[in-house]
Amino acid sequence: MHAIFLEELEKLNKRFIDLGLQVSEQIYLATKSFIDHDRDLAKQVIETDQKINDRQIAIVEESLKLIALQQPVATDFRKIIAISNASTDLERLSDHAESIARETIRVKGEQRIIQIETEIEAMALQVRRMLEQVLEAYLRGDQDLARDIARLDTEVDRRHHQLYNLIVGAMKRDAKTVTADTSYLTVIRLLERIGDHIINVAEWVIYRETGKITELAFKEDNK
Amino acid sequence: MHAIFLEELEKLNKRFIDLGLQVSEQIYLATKSFIDHDRDLAKQVIETDQKINDRQIAIVEESLKLIALQQPVATDFRKIIAISNASTDLERLSDHAESIARETIRVKGEQRIIQIETEIEAMALQVRRMLEQVLEAYLRGDQDLARDIARLDTEVDRRHHQLYNLIVGAMKRDAKTVTADTSYLTVIRLLERIGDHIINVAEWVIYRETGKITELAFKEDNK
Repeated sequence: MHAIFLEELEKLNKRFIDLGLQVSEQIYLATKSFIDHDRDLAKQVIETDQKINDRQIAIVEESLKLIALQQPVATDFRKIIAISNASTDLERLSDHAESIARETIRVKGEQRIIQIETEIEAMALQVRRMLEQVLEAYLRGDQDLARDIARLDTEVDRRHHQLYNLIVGAMKRDAKTVTADTSYLTVIRLLERIGDHIINVAEWVIYRETGKITELAFKEDNK
Repeated sequence: MHAIFLEELEKLNKRFIDLGLQVSEQIYLATKSFIDHDRDLAKQVIETDQKINDRQIAIVEESLKLIALQQPVATDFRKIIAISNASTDLERLSDHAESIARETIRVKGEQRIIQIETEIEAMALQVRRMLEQVLEAYLRGDQDLARDIARLDTEVDRRHHQLYNLIVGAMKRDAKTVTADTSYLTVIRLLERIGDHIINVAEWVIYRETGKITELAFKEDNK
């Protein structure tokens, strides 16, 4: 019985990590489509999001079925709960990436500000590093690495804050950039929310290791 | 054994509904603080959010403990999983309300546009109706009522779309309103996200009744 459980758990773990890697790719492609004004790429991201949703639902269903059938206790139980909940967070990351892709389609060759777009690219890279670190923490069962994600998120928040001021400044200076600027604001807000959801994944890694639900996010100062 | 389980379940249900009502109050107070430029009220919302976080963590811990100790099956199992997951969504609603309150503190007596503020108030009322409906669906175990939430969310999305255009128009016309407008955009985005999270709660109500994980949200058209 326990051998079957472990085998199923291993499969679920693999599917979880695959999902995480695919979501990281979505964040990359969505941001790229936005920066490059590439509508075809944006459409591809939107289509892939639907597949990611289906995969995530399958993981949650499989996890809950495994708990119901095998009635795991203690650590085994926590491992399944962590997969189920963290995969829900991964799916939300993917939703945010999809929203970035939808923003690509919405903006129509408006006046652009290269400096801001370069910064947005760097911000997307930062959140993808957070995601890769949390997947590594998950694989290794490394709580310290998971806790360290909160520090990375503070850096993402700082960049969001700087970019926000830069964009609002641009709006005030030149009304012709307002449409593009509004779009920039939406995208940086989405990237910042992606960071927050990655924190949630890190919290599930810690739950799995300790059985404790911990809040990792630093409260944002009034940005 | 089952009697103890039912008693514990009843307590958890009550705590879940209380949490939902408190979150609804937070959405109301946060929007009110924003419209009234009432920083004291905003601070109160931010403080209450911390208490809501603590209460939600306690509900999740209690739920997981109950599963681990009592090993419920079938419907009983689903009831606990639904509480645990839906309470996580409620907590995120509260986080968004808190972000609205932080926006109140951030804006500093900037030029205001009354028409937009009235619309924002109406939008907040709409999302609170969605929340009340989902709590009622939860209490009654009424899947049809839960499914109907998606329709209400479409109306919230429509209002978001209209307001978005109104605000961007205001920005282009008068650079002096840019700071307030940016704030308006943040708040309507947060209210729209609150609507999305309420959909997630409705999905957990349906899971509890059917055992199936359903996606209720209509895909947004390119707004």
